[in-house]
Amino acid sequence: MNKIYPPKVYLNGDILAPDEAKISVFDRGFLFGDGIYEVMAQIGGQFLYQEAHIDRLQEGLQKIKIDFDVRLLDTEIPKLLDAAELHGKDCLLYIQITRGVAPRKHAYPNQITPTILMYATAQTLPDINDVLAQVVSMNDFRWSRCDIKMTSLLGNVMANEYGAQKGCYETVLFREGLVTEASHSNVFFVRDRVVYTHPENEYILSGITRKIVLELCAQLGIKVMEEAIAIEEVVKMDEAFLTGTNTQIASIKQWDDHFFYHGDTIEGVTKELQWAFKELKERNSTLK
Amino acid sequence: MNKIYPPKVYLNGDILAPDEAKISVFDRGFLFGDGIYEVMAQIGGQFLYQEAHIDRLQEGLQKIKIDFDVRLLDTEIPKLLDAAELHGKDCLLYIQITRGVAPRKHAYPNQITPTILMYATAQTLPDINDVLAQVVSMNDFRWSRCDIKMTSLLGNVMANEYGAQKGCYETVLFREGLVTEASHSNVFFVRDRVVYTHPENEYILSGITRKIVLELCAQLGIKVMEEAIAIEEVVKMDEAFLTGTNTQIASIKQWDDHFFYHGDTIEGVTKELQWAFKELKERNSTLK
Repeated sequence: MNKIYPPKVYLNGDILAPDEAKISVFDRGFLFGDGIYEVMAQIGGQFLYQEAHIDRLQEGLQKIKIDFDVRLLDTEIPKLLDAAELHGKDCLLYIQITRGVAPRKHAYPNQITPTILMYATAQTLPDINDVLAQVVSMNDFRWSRCDIKMTSLLGNVMANEYGAQKGCYETVLFREGLVTEASHSNVFFVRDRVVYTHPENEYILSGITRKIVLELCAQLGIKVMEEAIAIEEVVKMDEAFLTGTNTQIASIKQWDDHFFYHGDTIEGVTKELQWAFKELKERNSTLK
Repeated sequence: MNKIYPPKVYLNGDILAPDEAKISVFDRGFLFGDGIYEVMAQIGGQFLYQEAHIDRLQEGLQKIKIDFDVRLLDTEIPKLLDAAELHGKDCLLYIQITRGVAPRKHAYPNQITPTILMYATAQTLPDINDVLAQVVSMNDFRWSRCDIKMTSLLGNVMANEYGAQKGCYETVLFREGLVTEASHSNVFFVRDRVVYTHPENEYILSGITRKIVLELCAQLGIKVMEEAIAIEEVVKMDEAFLTGTNTQIASIKQWDDHFFYHGDTIEGVTKELQWAFKELKERNSTLK
């Protein structure tokens, strides 16, 4: 395997080279996409909002009744980071927990041990994501439990590929005419200095960066309306942006054929939030 | 691993013991549920409707742009069956093809080799499935591309578990008030000797046994209406049954609190179709 794979893989307590990290074909993660995952960014020696990520992981596992206490990861994550020589370094940590190995049968098997996969990849996120994102929209054909961060991701993969084929940064989704989220990020709009985003429910993932942005808006005195925007209202918005652990805050310049702005300068509330997020990350680092 | 695992596993050209059959954790089947699967029954020395199953597998792969020619399986399936000592014997064959191994990134990677998993388990289906099935209904919260027989199955798994927890044989699903299908089978109704089932579209899997039943109805002169039944119309139906490769034709006795019949005798159109299906399987065997 080449260098774009992570240096080390944690699998069920073992630290392995990436080409040695193998699971049974009878793992329900492979047969059914029966697992939950999480991605966290270590910035300046500390995972950003680690508690929120770990709590969401636990909630996801509970929603699909995988019996695993995420607190067990507290001692395991440092082992992986040490082995990967990423202790204290900027990196992205991927965690996947599947129900475990059993003969193929849909219903949850009894007395099964979850499979724990983790790996970290050296990656320094930019202070500010200065992409001028182009996005395409498509119908949100995914299931109606998008609050569950599951590994049955083919719907998200197909949506992402749809945009990638058009050279776009992301694919934004609408359900019954209302913008929900994007293939792997949340979507925000700004109009008259009011920030709009889809409310937390079963149609979107409760993004950690989404939560951070809502907190930053409160700190900055920017009004937030958690309400879904109709697809035909998008062109009436002043700004739009995406959020995600890896995406951070990414300005949307072009949405289908509509341009929110011309030129190469990100302005307005999006820029304010990007700067506030940068400062939050710096505070996070010095808190260590 | 104990005896409920299959005797042998075919994995990318190798025949392996089940506990030796391992895939990379970077297989997109494991990270994204990015694969297609198929199940076929060998009965009396021949796979029932093999062409239809293999064609559906190819169509599924094309729908998600996995580049694999299923004709390559023609020479590989006999190798597996020989190794498993199931050549010519009654068994269920499971086939799963995933996009392959690549560093985790949603969009389809270029130049990737699909992962091919197959295994067969000795299993003699009864001449007639004489179960008197109890089913529960729930909202169909799955995606709107249920025509794709994908391995991102958590929605189906959760639906199946919902019924299993209530001791039921299956969980039947309704979308916007209309019965679509069940967690891993198709659903039919009978009223006044007319057979009803959801039309083929993106809300249901185009079941092979579903197709066989439609053919048998034509042969028996039984009228078929491919239209969805509203959930409140279910109690007005005379009969209901499930179809699937493993399920064959299973009479539904109880649907939530409603009984289609009392006692232990399957009658009517369901029984006629079960007998016609038994005869079809016998013809299939002698065709060999």
